[in-house]
Amino acid sequence: MSISEMPSLDRLSLNQITVDQWSLEQVIDGCLRAGVDWIGPWRHKVQEAGLNRAARLVRESGLKVSSYCRGGFFPVLEHEIGTRHEDNCRAVDEAVALGTDVLVLVCGPSIDKDIEAARHMVVEGIAALVPHARAAGVKLGIEPLHPMFAGDRSVVVTLGQATDVASNFSSDDVGVIVDVYHVWWDPNLYEEIERATGRILGFHVSDWTVPTPELLAGRGLMGDGVIELRRIRAAVEAAGYGGPIEIEVINRDLWSRSGDEVLSAVVSRFTEHV
Amino acid sequence: MSISEMPSLDRLSLNQITVDQWSLEQVIDGCLRAGVDWIGPWRHKVQEAGLNRAARLVRESGLKVSSYCRGGFFPVLEHEIGTRHEDNCRAVDEAVALGTDVLVLVCGPSIDKDIEAARHMVVEGIAALVPHARAAGVKLGIEPLHPMFAGDRSVVVTLGQATDVASNFSSDDVGVIVDVYHVWWDPNLYEEIERATGRILGFHVSDWTVPTPELLAGRGLMGDGVIELRRIRAAVEAAGYGGPIEIEVINRDLWSRSGDEVLSAVVSRFTEHV
Repeated sequence: MSISEMPSLDRLSLNQITVDQWSLEQVIDGCLRAGVDWIGPWRHKVQEAGLNRAARLVRESGLKVSSYCRGGFFPVLEHEIGTRHEDNCRAVDEAVALGTDVLVLVCGPSIDKDIEAARHMVVEGIAALVPHARAAGVKLGIEPLHPMFAGDRSVVVTLGQATDVASNFSSDDVGVIVDVYHVWWDPNLYEEIERATGRILGFHVSDWTVPTPELLAGRGLMGDGVIELRRIRAAVEAAGYGGPIEIEVINRDLWSRSGDEVLSAVVSRFTEHV
Repeated sequence: MSISEMPSLDRLSLNQITVDQWSLEQVIDGCLRAGVDWIGPWRHKVQEAGLNRAARLVRESGLKVSSYCRGGFFPVLEHEIGTRHEDNCRAVDEAVALGTDVLVLVCGPSIDKDIEAARHMVVEGIAALVPHARAAGVKLGIEPLHPMFAGDRSVVVTLGQATDVASNFSSDDVGVIVDVYHVWWDPNLYEEIERATGRILGFHVSDWTVPTPELLAGRGLMGDGVIELRRIRAAVEAAGYGGPIEIEVINRDLWSRSGDEVLSAVVSRFTEHV
């Protein structure tokens, strides 16, 4: 591996969930200490800080915001559609306040056994959100989740499906997020990354460890698992994405360690394995 | 739901892993008590009983054997290929001794990060096994596993991929197993079931509970989860499969209960939800 094949450190973005033990202010300070230029904040942490304060903290830090996580969860009962839409519009506005033009969409589970109907509600929910997002200058990034989350987090479970949904809209408005943890197993992965050319709005990285201790918070640091990280990164870059690379390692054990220690490991693993 | 839409109870097969607390002899006795006509034995239980004794117990019971679980695990180091092949040939012979013509293949994980190479080894391993299986009158049923098992159990993770692999061979020799737990999340599920017409060698049923307590042994009894069981069964039948329906509920809690109690629940849930 020659140096030129390594991604520049200035593409590293710390997705905040990796250090969920930290407040937004602590994440910002930690990134400044570690020389990390980008962050990917989560909504629960922004709400905890308060939006205005969060936006000011980010602005004053000089850090760039790679994306805002998250809107979505479109399948709801009919009488809840309006409320969910309004909440997603607020997420768009918060993204703007934080200084990013990418809102990550986790599309949500079905409300009943009819997963096909839920998938239609996702398309309808995005269609309803696009005008507000476009007016705000925010792109919507559909993140397919691993099929093990089909029952509780997202009925969008493959990159191909996410691209199909996105293709209902202009690529100026709706794209996809490629997270290696969610897509690495896909027999059609490289064809689908190529097909997503011009639609990729984010690239998220962690690793799949064997064994995987739990469904939700059992991800590994890069290098601890079986994912061909460099091959996938090369494919994503060949598909035209050269933006920030979010390190999103949802791992219960990391949350029990010091944030600085985790961030230091993130930086060294990024250099070594991404 | 009219009576005619329910599957006949004489299609119910008890996959042995559902009552892993039972020996093969106990499973046979339990099925006779409960009026279940079919069983799907697992290899570790047959080895525990001894092959000759296992074959005799099954024969004398009058029970029919829907499939034998399992051969496969094809990706190995080069010097282990012969040993693995011989072991798979033995699994074919054991299937014959037990009186079934279907050997379920769980294809195995990759030995390193090169999942594509592992997928080639699966095709090569099946190609090597086909002549022995054909001579023995045994069909090989490729079971795609849920993508959450891509790292430790199977690099074959979608029904479409399994059908693609099977299509390298005659449908007299190689087919696929449709297990709802492994495939329910797939956006292309119904198209892929249709494409598998003439290749379906088995239909396995359980349910996906929300939340799912663990990756391996967290399946639910039919009706406890979110899978559209009847819709999938109808699709599998429309694709030409009318054989036994194996109830394969890998669930740690069920293993701690009495086998008769579990089997009784299996029968009533089969009638109610499959």
